[in-house]
Amino acid sequence: MLTLYYATNTCALASHIALEEAGAAFDTRRVDFAAAEQTKPDYLKINPKGRVPTLMTERGALTETPAILAYIAQSHPEAKLAPLDDPFAFAELQAFMSYLCATVHVAHAHRIRGYRWADDPAAHEAMKKKVPQSVGSCFDLIERKMFRGPWAMGDAYTVADPYLFTLARWMEVDGVDPRAYPRVLDHRDRMAERPAVVRALRSEGLA
Amino acid sequence: MLTLYYATNTCALASHIALEEAGAAFDTRRVDFAAAEQTKPDYLKINPKGRVPTLMTERGALTETPAILAYIAQSHPEAKLAPLDDPFAFAELQAFMSYLCATVHVAHAHRIRGYRWADDPAAHEAMKKKVPQSVGSCFDLIERKMFRGPWAMGDAYTVADPYLFTLARWMEVDGVDPRAYPRVLDHRDRMAERPAVVRALRSEGLA
Repeated sequence: MLTLYYATNTCALASHIALEEAGAAFDTRRVDFAAAEQTKPDYLKINPKGRVPTLMTERGALTETPAILAYIAQSHPEAKLAPLDDPFAFAELQAFMSYLCATVHVAHAHRIRGYRWADDPAAHEAMKKKVPQSVGSCFDLIERKMFRGPWAMGDAYTVADPYLFTLARWMEVDGVDPRAYPRVLDHRDRMAERPAVVRALRSEGLA
Repeated sequence: MLTLYYATNTCALASHIALEEAGAAFDTRRVDFAAAEQTKPDYLKINPKGRVPTLMTERGALTETPAILAYIAQSHPEAKLAPLDDPFAFAELQAFMSYLCATVHVAHAHRIRGYRWADDPAAHEAMKKKVPQSVGSCFDLIERKMFRGPWAMGDAYTVADPYLFTLARWMEVDGVDPRAYPRVLDHRDRMAERPAVVRALRSEGLA
């Protein structure tokens, strides 16, 4: 049995959806960010980074969304959530997920997590101000160059799809107009109708 | 034949070392950051992100260090640079690399790439000022919780090792005292003596 530690409206949703898509045996534990539970000793024992998601397995904890998503795909091969027998295609999938993690999510995080990278409140405001542009330019690249369609990597649905969906849900709060990225928006709309996505959203109280 | 597009003193060194460790057939192409070559149309055709590294393969370009490193390991299984038959251990390796990419490298990037996340020069200065602390806290976590020894993931040398080595070379320029992280420093010293590392450093004019 797997246990996913998540918080609502975080990137943990991607792993949650992937577990649903994989038909995995799992349960979830909500980490209460409002109570700063992720910074408390009990949670830090599980994940010393104090972040979500954490996927607890029989062999121990896994962290980092790209790693967890690849793990779900590799440990549930029958769900065909990644091109497991093709290192090049697998690397293309991983590159897409790495971009979502290290560029798109990082750009987004500057809206309310500026304290990670500066102490000056004026700097936090300056970071917040640039988020519509920095996140927008990421989605522009995805729209024009990375997204293949109908799914992120092309004909096959992969674990990159719930990850893209999860970050694309933040466009409005980041001041990015989704209508400027019609392929990403269409993907988001189609994703929202998938039964696995509906189950994950409902479980997190988001639908 | 693989071609690695790199620039000196960038994270592309990790992929360069991994190609040497793998015994891969490859050549290198230096991208001249001083001349902003990475922003020119010729390079953007290869990698529309305008970043390094890019690994050109017979099937096309791969980007993003964690994806390239996993690809090198998977496509050169005889080099045993990753636990390819164990999805859990592979995920632990990937989580380590994802942390290096999305947290350590991102913290480092705030020293001179603040323009990515704010337009105000005062904000860039505020970001630069926090780098010793933010990068230092990353290496503190690596030292105390993540690094297993003698290699990053334990007994087996993996592609996480050249990646850790590459980012650990930036500690001094980031204002982080390596002596505060003796296990990371010892790893860096041992890495610097490996023939594959020496070959990559010499090829880039760094040794």
